[in-house]
Amino acid sequence: MQGYNGSTIKEPPMTAPGTVYGVGLGPGDPDLMSVKAARLVRTAGVVAYFCKAGSRSNARGIAAGLLAPGAVEIGMEYPVTTEIAVADPAYNAALRGFYETCVARLLEHAEGGRDVIVLCEGDPFLYGSFMHLYTRLREHVPVVVVPGIPGMSGCWTATGQPITWGDDVLTVLPGTLDEQTLTDRMGRADAIVVMKLGRNLPKVRRAMAAAGLLDRALYVERGTMAGETVMRLADKPDDSAPYFSMVLVPGEGRRP
Amino acid sequence: MQGYNGSTIKEPPMTAPGTVYGVGLGPGDPDLMSVKAARLVRTAGVVAYFCKAGSRSNARGIAAGLLAPGAVEIGMEYPVTTEIAVADPAYNAALRGFYETCVARLLEHAEGGRDVIVLCEGDPFLYGSFMHLYTRLREHVPVVVVPGIPGMSGCWTATGQPITWGDDVLTVLPGTLDEQTLTDRMGRADAIVVMKLGRNLPKVRRAMAAAGLLDRALYVERGTMAGETVMRLADKPDDSAPYFSMVLVPGEGRRP
Repeated sequence: MQGYNGSTIKEPPMTAPGTVYGVGLGPGDPDLMSVKAARLVRTAGVVAYFCKAGSRSNARGIAAGLLAPGAVEIGMEYPVTTEIAVADPAYNAALRGFYETCVARLLEHAEGGRDVIVLCEGDPFLYGSFMHLYTRLREHVPVVVVPGIPGMSGCWTATGQPITWGDDVLTVLPGTLDEQTLTDRMGRADAIVVMKLGRNLPKVRRAMAAAGLLDRALYVERGTMAGETVMRLADKPDDSAPYFSMVLVPGEGRRP
Repeated sequence: MQGYNGSTIKEPPMTAPGTVYGVGLGPGDPDLMSVKAARLVRTAGVVAYFCKAGSRSNARGIAAGLLAPGAVEIGMEYPVTTEIAVADPAYNAALRGFYETCVARLLEHAEGGRDVIVLCEGDPFLYGSFMHLYTRLREHVPVVVVPGIPGMSGCWTATGQPITWGDDVLTVLPGTLDEQTLTDRMGRADAIVVMKLGRNLPKVRRAMAAAGLLDRALYVERGTMAGETVMRLADKPDDSAPYFSMVLVPGEGRRP
């Protein structure tokens, strides 16, 4: 850059910002990552992923075999919020602060000209934590979202039964809803996926029974992954449900 | 094989049957095929796909760049059923005959020991025609289903807006439902995907308006593909909707 009289003025070099990619990794089997996702992960210089405090990241686990040695890793550890009710404003405030800190960490790289690959289980825009970074990041740097096979697709494939036939309506329910809402929604549904099971499994089971669907409901754990388990929900002997688990009711619509 | 007195009896050689793979190709961009799907397509000796009479196959179009020269191709052309009402038993009968013919053609290869790759748009178990082959084929030969990124994931990614937040319930509706049912379901939904638009678009538009959602509804055409178009449904000036199109209403749930 030149000053008005032709002298050179020093200023920081202009660096084009890097792009943040929110990359859907699919339901768990690394072979079910998209060609695009696999290429982005393999060539990533900076990767970021969410994880629970003290746990390994599920997303990083899916991508592990592809990460380049020497890639910079940014682990984004959720704050512990189990003590705070979801309805309490303090819950939202804690998460908001967490997401803002994550965004600042990613921007440090992106504004320095480095692309950042955020590893996301399933599909980033279907109940993914990435969306909370996405809405904040895109005001500052280019953000690209790469869709992935949702976890639910992996789970219904694992059951060996198509999820929707003919004119079936598919209802996708977060298990975090209250029991009455779950029961009402299930009662009106043709085909059902219940996500976010975890500690909600006993409630989901009661709602399925109240809606008269316990005989049709299937429990799937680790769909498409090692240790994949499929059973009738009615046959599940305990109430433990790990992170990668869902309850499904396949539709019964028209089948010529 | 030997007869009881040691003489050799001629019989056809025992051939292990091939496997039929129902392979989800994703929403349209070939780069969004899974690594597994791309490998199966690239190495396929026999590929099969559905198409409308006189039209090119959408699924084959997604896979075209990967098909090996010399692969045997089985085009499965839907019977023309536009003259028959869906509720007419003749409709189901026509489709049933069609699917049985397709199955016979695929079995000829599979029972001869050759793997067959059936190309499927999106995810095979979400409203896919493949499921009608699947239930018939698996009585005879091994069948493997490879999930794919559903068309709806490609479309919500194209909108740049996450489809579900927090505790949003996602409702996936076939546009083939009657107008009152569509309106009722939409009115109770948080986030909505309407598939199977085509000639149903005017009806879907009226139902969205009746449910008070026309301002939030987005129309997406060819999501993730060349010619991708996203607009407010209210701004769409005509009623034409090609095969690759959907209407979406992104959820408005909790966002910390």
